[in-house]
Amino acid sequence: MSRRLEVGRALLSRNDDAAAGLRQRFQRDGLWVINLMSSPGSGKTAWLQRTLAELQGRAAALVGDLETDLDARRLAHSGAPVRQIRTAGMCHLEAAMIEEQLEGWELPGVDYLFVENVGNLVCPVGFDLGEHLRVLMFSTPEGEDKPLKYPPAFRWADIVLLSKIDLADAVGCDVESAVANVQAVHPGVPVIRTSARSGEGMQSWLEALS
Amino acid sequence: MSRRLEVGRALLSRNDDAAAGLRQRFQRDGLWVINLMSSPGSGKTAWLQRTLAELQGRAAALVGDLETDLDARRLAHSGAPVRQIRTAGMCHLEAAMIEEQLEGWELPGVDYLFVENVGNLVCPVGFDLGEHLRVLMFSTPEGEDKPLKYPPAFRWADIVLLSKIDLADAVGCDVESAVANVQAVHPGVPVIRTSARSGEGMQSWLEALS
Repeated sequence: MSRRLEVGRALLSRNDDAAAGLRQRFQRDGLWVINLMSSPGSGKTAWLQRTLAELQGRAAALVGDLETDLDARRLAHSGAPVRQIRTAGMCHLEAAMIEEQLEGWELPGVDYLFVENVGNLVCPVGFDLGEHLRVLMFSTPEGEDKPLKYPPAFRWADIVLLSKIDLADAVGCDVESAVANVQAVHPGVPVIRTSARSGEGMQSWLEALS
Repeated sequence: MSRRLEVGRALLSRNDDAAAGLRQRFQRDGLWVINLMSSPGSGKTAWLQRTLAELQGRAAALVGDLETDLDARRLAHSGAPVRQIRTAGMCHLEAAMIEEQLEGWELPGVDYLFVENVGNLVCPVGFDLGEHLRVLMFSTPEGEDKPLKYPPAFRWADIVLLSKIDLADAVGCDVESAVANVQAVHPGVPVIRTSARSGEGMQSWLEALS
C-alpha cells in the first residue's frame, strides 16, 4: 500500500505544479475558470448549455469524457467555443490535459472557461485544474443521501448545485433533507437548486459566477 | 506515465491473485457471487433490498461505500446477513477488502452473495472480486447516452440492468435508444428493464441469477 500512496502523492504534486502554471496563464488571459464535477448523468451538460447561451460570446467550455465527443457537440450548438477532452479510460481530468487542449486556442472576448469533468463523484477530488471555482452538481434522482456517502467531493466544492429540481417529487427526493445533508458535511457552502428544463436557479448561478 | 502504468499493472495483478483465492473459497462454500456496479444513485441498494426479500434466507450482501453504513442498514431490514465495507475514500472495491470482511462470517444456507460496489462508472472495472457474475446498472434519469460515454463498464458486464424504468417518461429517457446504445458497445449482452418501485424485471433478474 505504501508504494501506491507514494506514487499517488508524486502524481498529485506533479499535477499541482501544472495547475499553478495554468492559474498564472488564466490570470494573464483574464479567464475565470470553473471546474464542474458530478456523477454521470446529473445534468452537467444540459446546465452548461443554458449557461453558455446566457453568457453568449463571453464563455467557452472544455468537456471531459472517457469516449465520444457527444457533449462537445451538444454544447457547440450554443455557438460558444468548445473542445472535447477524451480521457481514454481515465476517471478524472488532470492539469496536463487542460494545458494540452489550450494549445493554440484563441479565446478573444471570453471571460469564463467552464471545465466539465468526467462523470465521477470520487476521483476528480484533489486534482487541481488551475480553476477559480469548484462546483459540485448532484441531481434529485440520485437521492438525498449522496453528500453523506461521498463527503470528500462535497467538502471540495465552493458551490453545490442540486439539479433536476423539477423532478424532485416524481423521483421522491426530499429536497430539504438533501440540502441539510450537504450542510452536514460542508457547513456554510452555498446550495443552488437548479433545473435545466425550467431555468430555475439560473439567476443565482450567474450571480455566484460574477 | 510509465511508472503509473507499471504500478497500476502490479496492483491489478496482486488483485487478480487475491480474487483467484476468493473464487476457490466461494466454490468450496457453494456461494454464487454477484458484483454489482453503477453510478452513485442508480438504485443499486433499492434493487438489492427487493432481491434479498425475494431470496429470503438464501442471500447475503456486502456493501461498499466511501463513508457511512446507511446502505447496510437499509439492506439489513430484509433480515439478510449484511456487512458494510467502508473504503475510506477509495473509488472501487478490491479483492483484499472482500477477504477481510469474510473473516469469521458464517453463512449457513446462503447461496447468493451480492457485492454492491462503490458508486462509480469507471474505476471498479478490471478489479476482479472473485465474482461469478458482473452486473452493471444504469438508470433512466442518467440518460440514454451513458453506454457510449462509459464503454469499458458496459463491456465488462455479463448483464445490464436499466433501472428506474417507471421514471423513463418523466425524465425524458428514450428506453429503446438506451438499449440500442448498450448493444452498440456490447453486442448480445442481456439488458433487463427494472423498477425497484413496481418490481418490474424481478422475474427475469431471478431467472438470470439461477
